[in-house]
Amino acid sequence: MADVRTALAEAVGEEHVLSGDAVPPEYGRDESLGVAGVRPDLVVRPADAGQVAAVLKVAGEHGLPVTARGSGTGLSGAAVPRPGGLVVSFERMNRILEIDADGQVAVVQPGVTLAELDEATAAQGLVYPIFPGEGSASIGGTVATNAGGMHAVKEGVTRHHVLGLEAVLATGEVIRTGGRYVKTSTGYDLTQLIVGSEGTLALVTEVTLRLRPRLPHTAGVLAPFPGTEPVTAAIPRLTGGGLDPLVLEYVDVLAMSAITQNAGLDLGVPQEIRDAAGAYLLVVLGNRSAERLDEDVQTLGEQLAGLGAADVYVLQGEPLRKLITAREGAFWAARAAGANAIVDAVVPRTALARFFAAVPEIAGRHGALIGGCGHAGDGNVHLSVFQPDDEALAEAMDELLAAAAELGGTISGEHGIGREKIRQFLALEDPAKVALMRRIKTSFDPDGILNPGVLFG
Amino acid sequence: MADVRTALAEAVGEEHVLSGDAVPPEYGRDESLGVAGVRPDLVVRPADAGQVAAVLKVAGEHGLPVTARGSGTGLSGAAVPRPGGLVVSFERMNRILEIDADGQVAVVQPGVTLAELDEATAAQGLVYPIFPGEGSASIGGTVATNAGGMHAVKEGVTRHHVLGLEAVLATGEVIRTGGRYVKTSTGYDLTQLIVGSEGTLALVTEVTLRLRPRLPHTAGVLAPFPGTEPVTAAIPRLTGGGLDPLVLEYVDVLAMSAITQNAGLDLGVPQEIRDAAGAYLLVVLGNRSAERLDEDVQTLGEQLAGLGAADVYVLQGEPLRKLITAREGAFWAARAAGANAIVDAVVPRTALARFFAAVPEIAGRHGALIGGCGHAGDGNVHLSVFQPDDEALAEAMDELLAAAAELGGTISGEHGIGREKIRQFLALEDPAKVALMRRIKTSFDPDGILNPGVLFG
Repeated sequence: MADVRTALAEAVGEEHVLSGDAVPPEYGRDESLGVAGVRPDLVVRPADAGQVAAVLKVAGEHGLPVTARGSGTGLSGAAVPRPGGLVVSFERMNRILEIDADGQVAVVQPGVTLAELDEATAAQGLVYPIFPGEGSASIGGTVATNAGGMHAVKEGVTRHHVLGLEAVLATGEVIRTGGRYVKTSTGYDLTQLIVGSEGTLALVTEVTLRLRPRLPHTAGVLAPFPGTEPVTAAIPRLTGGGLDPLVLEYVDVLAMSAITQNAGLDLGVPQEIRDAAGAYLLVVLGNRSAERLDEDVQTLGEQLAGLGAADVYVLQGEPLRKLITAREGAFWAARAAGANAIVDAVVPRTALARFFAAVPEIAGRHGALIGGCGHAGDGNVHLSVFQPDDEALAEAMDELLAAAAELGGTISGEHGIGREKIRQFLALEDPAKVALMRRIKTSFDPDGILNPGVLFG
Repeated sequence: MADVRTALAEAVGEEHVLSGDAVPPEYGRDESLGVAGVRPDLVVRPADAGQVAAVLKVAGEHGLPVTARGSGTGLSGAAVPRPGGLVVSFERMNRILEIDADGQVAVVQPGVTLAELDEATAAQGLVYPIFPGEGSASIGGTVATNAGGMHAVKEGVTRHHVLGLEAVLATGEVIRTGGRYVKTSTGYDLTQLIVGSEGTLALVTEVTLRLRPRLPHTAGVLAPFPGTEPVTAAIPRLTGGGLDPLVLEYVDVLAMSAITQNAGLDLGVPQEIRDAAGAYLLVVLGNRSAERLDEDVQTLGEQLAGLGAADVYVLQGEPLRKLITAREGAFWAARAAGANAIVDAVVPRTALARFFAAVPEIAGRHGALIGGCGHAGDGNVHLSVFQPDDEALAEAMDELLAAAAELGGTISGEHGIGREKIRQFLALEDPAKVALMRRIKTSFDPDGILNPGVLFG
């Protein structure tokens, strides 16, 4: 242990190695509701890729399990280390290295937060369009989980915007993948393989991101519907209706009540409409022209009314921002209300109605209260599950995720498998694919030092 | 050999195995200018994934090298088999299985051509926005090379639209990856790993594609410029100018002359403007509203004039279609003119000027004539190289690709490495990455039966 500490101190400097009781417990946990924190034996805070490489060489020599850590805002326990393990915290690698406005590219270190990047890109009229609802999330963390968020219906997810990486392999080799371009056909796409790998293949030390022009004008329309059926029927009409929504969210009445109360928000929806509502859609449009946006909002309102909305409420500026923030805080509202688990499953957009029909049946079978909201345009459902009994909760979660898989969906849209969903991942995934993924893991990390236990158990 | 033939006949039916002199030579080549055809010993034409799996089991047992074949329109020799090898032709797996308009998804077999899919999606007001310039290309082939094309500046490349695959591993195991959704964070992205792998990791037997609403109104603006410098300076202004071009192509005067002559096309550009032109930009906009399109074309014309265009020519309908078709035929025009090699390198958009400055120097050093056109919005340069001397040609190609790599670009944007660019790939790529790719290859295909020699030599 003393040897290891000395070697790590040589790698990153004595003041950037924490060990034993000096390790703050925060380094051992993320925001997962289902994975208990584990205080690591060691934490290092490298300053650059060279230091990360030196750390991985030490870890390799001593067989130390290594867990990368960004902001610790993950929801699946992927940043929870192994007992006796080493956490590599990217808190010092937090610089925006470049915003290349002409190339529409940002080059950032992994510890930069989404909020910091949003501020820097806004100053140039650009945007990195990944808004998973937590501005304090680090870029490195969002790359590790392939974060999605609200704008994915229009802009896609993290992997669609990561053009290149610098990453350190378990051997300590530093590689650069991709570059400041979209098109390439030069061998296997290592960038895309590392994105979403939850720290199990390599440690990312620099990210090249594709930026988009920031649309200066946005407006939202909130539409209460009598129930979930007209909502699910409306979704393909809205995604196919030509308006190309930036955001297309549904919020059920339980979640709407929780998020508005949690945020102290009054949307101006009259009590009788609220009482009659069964679910809400929130559609946000963006445009570079205020006039075109107004026209589109008018068209959208007519579309929504034609699809059965009880009314439409146009929100712009501060009221829209507040509602979006409240919606983004749905996880915190659920946690404050005592949710025991959360779901971020995805089903094909056209299977949402069937998934929503399955949810109350599962809830009923296991005495659980289940409600939520989600990225309807992507079929990405965020549910909060209230069932304090561990066994009943586990059964309900197994059935919810199995229902998504059976409908041709996936058990996690953006939170990742981490340590939390390993049981369901291994139970529901094709064993031939899991075996192939394990072989890929070995091709990167033969000794299994990178985030062991995550994904595969 | 008789054993193998019998086993393959059991797998796909006697009438779908060709061997020896009965193999038409076309099965041994693609459109690469630099890779000679190799007639395979055997060709099989499977009807479904089960038959492909049975074929791969036979190949594995007998150590037969296997090369997948779509339409044979590839430009890098990746469909050229090994001597003594087996070609798996997907010509019978050519059905569009479903166009799911509500889900904006198509499910197709690999032998479907882009033109066939375009016709089927158009009927539903949708589009699969990958237009690499060859409508007879098969979907399987475009997945294998991660095809890009003209619309990539707005819509991205093949990998951004492939949601899921059915694929047969070298072991004969059939896996399904992804599905009818964009968001997923459930282990390594096998879909993205197989896309662009040029038949070396698995044989794709079904593809689930993301479709987009088809914009009903399009218009192009052709702008002659006095030289390449104002053209390269204009590109970031146009990509960042808010009009979100669907197509942003540059064509140099040599290429413009070749493609218009080859197509017998008169663009109505007066002789004195043509004489003074140093390069052309072609910008295409699309919109769901004819009125908005007209406004945008007006704005675009003003932008182009402000950026130094000598004039602007608005093209719609048939004239636009003809020019696009002529531009798509640039490869055939170059071939007809006797080009000895082609380049499809990519550089960061902002490095185009430096790349264009390097090209005449390289041409001069090696006595080559080099001209071309390309997907300027993506920094993707298509050059035709005229130099009949093999050695001088090889040196010029090495230097052109090295120049792209040195500018932070990539040696192939969409054609792939195949058998043609192996030397430059291995010379210019980081050996640590090549070694990692070889290990990934082994994790899929331990005996190396899938397209051996392609990519790695």
